[in-house]
Amino acid sequence: MPLGLSTDLYQLTMAAGYFEAGKLEERATFELFVRRLPHNRNFVLAAGLAQAVEYLENLRYTKEEIDYLRTLPQFAHTSPAFFDYLAELRFTGDLFAVPEGTPLFPNEPFLTLRAPLVEAQIPETYLLATIGFQSMIATKAARVVKAALGRSVVEFGTRRAHSPEAGVYAGRASYIGGCGGTSNTEAGMRFGVPVFGTAAHSWVMSFSSERQAFEQLQKLLGESTVYLIDSYDTLEGARRAAELGRPLWGVRLDSGNMVTLAPAVRKILDDAGLRETKIMATGDLNEYKIHELVAARAPIDVFGVGTELSTSADAPTLGVVYKMVELEDSGNRRYTAKLSEDKHTLPGSKQIFRYRTHDVLARSSECLNAPETLLRPVMLGGQLIEPLPTADEARNHAAECLSRLPASCQSLFERPEAWRVDLSPELEALYENVRKGIAK
Amino acid sequence: MPLGLSTDLYQLTMAAGYFEAGKLEERATFELFVRRLPHNRNFVLAAGLAQAVEYLENLRYTKEEIDYLRTLPQFAHTSPAFFDYLAELRFTGDLFAVPEGTPLFPNEPFLTLRAPLVEAQIPETYLLATIGFQSMIATKAARVVKAALGRSVVEFGTRRAHSPEAGVYAGRASYIGGCGGTSNTEAGMRFGVPVFGTAAHSWVMSFSSERQAFEQLQKLLGESTVYLIDSYDTLEGARRAAELGRPLWGVRLDSGNMVTLAPAVRKILDDAGLRETKIMATGDLNEYKIHELVAARAPIDVFGVGTELSTSADAPTLGVVYKMVELEDSGNRRYTAKLSEDKHTLPGSKQIFRYRTHDVLARSSECLNAPETLLRPVMLGGQLIEPLPTADEARNHAAECLSRLPASCQSLFERPEAWRVDLSPELEALYENVRKGIAK
Repeated sequence: MPLGLSTDLYQLTMAAGYFEAGKLEERATFELFVRRLPHNRNFVLAAGLAQAVEYLENLRYTKEEIDYLRTLPQFAHTSPAFFDYLAELRFTGDLFAVPEGTPLFPNEPFLTLRAPLVEAQIPETYLLATIGFQSMIATKAARVVKAALGRSVVEFGTRRAHSPEAGVYAGRASYIGGCGGTSNTEAGMRFGVPVFGTAAHSWVMSFSSERQAFEQLQKLLGESTVYLIDSYDTLEGARRAAELGRPLWGVRLDSGNMVTLAPAVRKILDDAGLRETKIMATGDLNEYKIHELVAARAPIDVFGVGTELSTSADAPTLGVVYKMVELEDSGNRRYTAKLSEDKHTLPGSKQIFRYRTHDVLARSSECLNAPETLLRPVMLGGQLIEPLPTADEARNHAAECLSRLPASCQSLFERPEAWRVDLSPELEALYENVRKGIAK
Repeated sequence: MPLGLSTDLYQLTMAAGYFEAGKLEERATFELFVRRLPHNRNFVLAAGLAQAVEYLENLRYTKEEIDYLRTLPQFAHTSPAFFDYLAELRFTGDLFAVPEGTPLFPNEPFLTLRAPLVEAQIPETYLLATIGFQSMIATKAARVVKAALGRSVVEFGTRRAHSPEAGVYAGRASYIGGCGGTSNTEAGMRFGVPVFGTAAHSWVMSFSSERQAFEQLQKLLGESTVYLIDSYDTLEGARRAAELGRPLWGVRLDSGNMVTLAPAVRKILDDAGLRETKIMATGDLNEYKIHELVAARAPIDVFGVGTELSTSADAPTLGVVYKMVELEDSGNRRYTAKLSEDKHTLPGSKQIFRYRTHDVLARSSECLNAPETLLRPVMLGGQLIEPLPTADEARNHAAECLSRLPASCQSLFERPEAWRVDLSPELEALYENVRKGIAK
């Protein structure tokens, strides 16, 4: 599928402008980061790099797309040579990034992209949307998984995701964030995410009795059987499940008061000798409700989390930005920053050094003796330098990184001092110089 | 692109179950609707039907997808004949829907789908995601446009949309909701939505002076020129724009206090004789802030709304559901409903009759003498019966429908009594009968 127009128009008008202004040889460095953390978040888990790379590898403009652009008033004065140039455009730059599953903090680059100005500018919109969304969801998933305190969490939110494609990536990102799997079958096939799901209310309703619906499901699924037991009366449903006995993986509750229903259902199952049968809870769950259910010792083994996870409903936007930090023209390097009062940025290409208790954000040319250096080369000269980690590997990396963060970072609520990010003296000095040099 | 797996796994396990249970000949009717309105909404604007139809027309399973499904434990007991059936599956059913751009209220179907059980079940997830998302965004757009009281609104939120594809559909849905256009170029090409955008801060920063950046932009864009004037100092930027003079479409403010900046910028432009030059405001805007800016008489001509629009940030989820309402087996029709206390649904296929002051939700077999009957046939026997309205036509339809709603419906805040939806006596009676028949 062509991806070239999946961007803001101004990236393309700017591209035309850089072409016309003879700036094709200039090399720009951009960084993608968040200025501040969303509501109740003490970190952001980086995700979406694989799709960012896929985009950069495949970015090109078809004849049809170029013909469309020619019709726009914004290109009325653009020389035909620009469109020939656009037809040949490929990404030839370098990409540095933190591995998917790495927790990050404000001002820390998810990625650094260095390329001829046009190639660095056009990808802005797509990179922000793909990294921003998946990072937002991976972060939300990590919170939900944390709240579940070792119980399984499965992502069930495709139907409420912001478009079907968002559902696929929500499945992927939730898995990286620690979920055990997803209901999104496309995410299963494309990314190797374990997939879950058995039957809906419509299944139960399509039979003339609940018992018949359960029998048919058991015949179909065997040891994978999960009955949805709340279509008519939850405790009746549980008794029916108990009567039918094994094979039975679990029962699912989708409505009602889980704190009272779950123990009652557990007792019915246990009394029938079905001690290994699991109870799954679904229905408008989130990390806050799961925290309460766990605190109330509701005997729930698996949480299926939908809408609230696939939309990050309590914080549905992640303020990712993509800012130019350097510009090189025939060997002459200029450091750039946005200086407007409420939205300033730090100039110069950076590196994140992670210590046991804090990070140091430094210039990329610095070499600090830290246990971890987070930004690593991913593409050089437009080519991927080694295969990217799988979703599975990213998930393991996330789990390992999160286990090393202090508990305060993983609080469900805001802890402003949870993690310290210092600026290196060299970076501070650069910022001051740029301020003095540009600002009057 | 194959779409078959872009669904919850349980749709496919249920499909296998219906196949195994010999229920291929049963015809089900499902309705898609919202149970309640989101925060501060007094209606939902239906959108996304075109993509729903595209999905139904193209739904099929590739060999690769089927091979993947065979590997899943949930299909361990499924007979090979099911996969042969799946390979041949096409949507052959009927689809009734309200036109895109129609305002709807709780329990009113956006669409009614009638098809063999499997064909009706599998599309659930995709239809919910595509109709739910676009309707949510079209609704949000209508609110933003209303708040702007005749000033233009352009959608600029692709970068913060939930994945790049969500950005494309946010552009489409915002246009249907009344925006004048979008920055999403793909939405421009695919759906004929007008596209807008000129340059970012990085453009300004890529030149050694703001003046040079402006000059180059003016040369490039001529009468489409819009300067972003807040990179260094907004009023300085405005003076620089005034010096350069015509051609100049407008200037854009992206930070700072718009209530004080906009009049100051207006004065600078007017003093230079640039009375027709427009002022565009961007930067974390939404309907509430626009309402305040308009009330404060800030001389802003165009609002560019990004993140808050493309994510519907104040109400980022729309609780669309897809429920079976009828099931027909060899001429024997059964009406189905979900009766659990907090999530009950109304049985039977329905029609929405719209009067000047209220709606009547009735059985589809009823014929009421109302000015408008909202649900119309769209596909019969799997075939589209006539071309769907374009995004432009849907936008006009929305504007016309919204102009007929009372002002209370279009309030930015909750007005619980804004619009009445009555149930017809026949529908009430059916509901009671189903309750008595199913519930014990």
